[in-house]
Amino acid sequence: MQTSCVAPDKKDLGRALCIVTGASKGFGRTIAKEISLLLKPRSVLVLAARSCEKLQELKADLDSSGAGREGLVTCCVVADLATNEGVGSVISAAKEFSIKDMDNLILINNAASLGDVSRYTQSFTNMAEVDSYLSFNVSSALSLTASLLQAFPQQQGLRRCIVNVSSLCALKPFPSWVLYCTGKAAREMMFRVLAEEEPDIRVLSYSPGPMDTDMQIVARDTTADLTVKKSFVSLLNQGQLITCEASCAKLLKVLLEDSYLSGAHLDFYEL
Amino acid sequence: MQTSCVAPDKKDLGRALCIVTGASKGFGRTIAKEISLLLKPRSVLVLAARSCEKLQELKADLDSSGAGREGLVTCCVVADLATNEGVGSVISAAKEFSIKDMDNLILINNAASLGDVSRYTQSFTNMAEVDSYLSFNVSSALSLTASLLQAFPQQQGLRRCIVNVSSLCALKPFPSWVLYCTGKAAREMMFRVLAEEEPDIRVLSYSPGPMDTDMQIVARDTTADLTVKKSFVSLLNQGQLITCEASCAKLLKVLLEDSYLSGAHLDFYEL
Repeated sequence: MQTSCVAPDKKDLGRALCIVTGASKGFGRTIAKEISLLLKPRSVLVLAARSCEKLQELKADLDSSGAGREGLVTCCVVADLATNEGVGSVISAAKEFSIKDMDNLILINNAASLGDVSRYTQSFTNMAEVDSYLSFNVSSALSLTASLLQAFPQQQGLRRCIVNVSSLCALKPFPSWVLYCTGKAAREMMFRVLAEEEPDIRVLSYSPGPMDTDMQIVARDTTADLTVKKSFVSLLNQGQLITCEASCAKLLKVLLEDSYLSGAHLDFYEL
Repeated sequence: MQTSCVAPDKKDLGRALCIVTGASKGFGRTIAKEISLLLKPRSVLVLAARSCEKLQELKADLDSSGAGREGLVTCCVVADLATNEGVGSVISAAKEFSIKDMDNLILINNAASLGDVSRYTQSFTNMAEVDSYLSFNVSSALSLTASLLQAFPQQQGLRRCIVNVSSLCALKPFPSWVLYCTGKAAREMMFRVLAEEEPDIRVLSYSPGPMDTDMQIVARDTTADLTVKKSFVSLLNQGQLITCEASCAKLLKVLLEDSYLSGAHLDFYEL
């Protein structure tokens, strides 16, 4: 697998076509805003999510920002990534733009769902529920990644980078979080296989830590396992939840330095 | 998590209700035959697979064996475990038998498919293909396990044991094996969560090593990655493929000793 030299003086991601899924809120929205500051003029940011309204708000913010005024093109795709059509519409939107003279193609696979954490493994008797969870959280990320790599094949001067927004749950089992842990473990392995296969592609699984997001609220309110639930309440009460901005800053630093081993799992707390 | 004392003198699994999936051939068939020798009279073996003919052959073998003549009841369930109905029919068949006076409830989640190993990750653009793979290899095992645990709740004197037939692929990425690696990693985590949640249930992920089965032939013939493909050819040519019997013997020794940490991944080569 490819590692590259540390470039400590690298201040931006060059001219890039960058796709962020789950961009309408939480970590995805923060990534979109923060990464826009690192993109050179005439870069393109493709933002995918289900909520049209929130995407449009974000686009308005970005268009009126410094990056927007300097020529960042922001394109919103309202899509349900749980479907082939949703994945297809993100790819179609990205293909509208020429990759010629781009330095980077970056896909941030951020979209994910928590699954029902109010129940234990023994309660997941309905295959359709599990199927649906895995489809959105695993199959969709694979299909989107594969389709994008096919749409934009290897070419000289183009650096292709795939980010998997991962979790400690990809590595460690948490009681009453069977869907989330299973999905994150599956994604992690999927991207490790990709990294093994394609030495020219940069693949990163980034675990952003416990962030102060809507998902965190649901986790705190509904987790069945009391020990896990209390740990979330304690993070909140002790002011230890991470802001999306702080976590995003570490992710972007890793992407700028570009010295990670492709396929690696990097954790907020270890950076 | 629960560990129990080593019982080196334990020679059988007592009276048990034992369910084996993918029992018609390969490792599943061997497990069915070998485990039958460790079950006390009036035990029940529920064998599930898609092929009616092969199951019936196996049942005939078992019925006429020493175990059969001493009162082992073998029940065949022709079922497609990729469907809710298939899972349901295995559970219904198991529930026909009384768990009263049984020492053990054992589920061997062996059924699995290889997926298409003739292509690389970049080619998996079709969500339906990935969905279908994950449904059979992940959702089905979760649904079956959950349903069985609900059907036979904790009761005094009953030891419940869930085996996940795993693989080195659950831990290590192999080029052109993205579906198999992803599915095995997902299953591994799923069963680790179960082990965390239910200290009274014994959960084991067993990696049986490269066995001389039909799946091995397909792997050897169709793997896209040449290094991986050659490693299989080399295993064959150097006589290093493991017989199903040899691998099964180690699995059964682990089950008899019953000293593993619940949720652990144990590998043939490390036993």
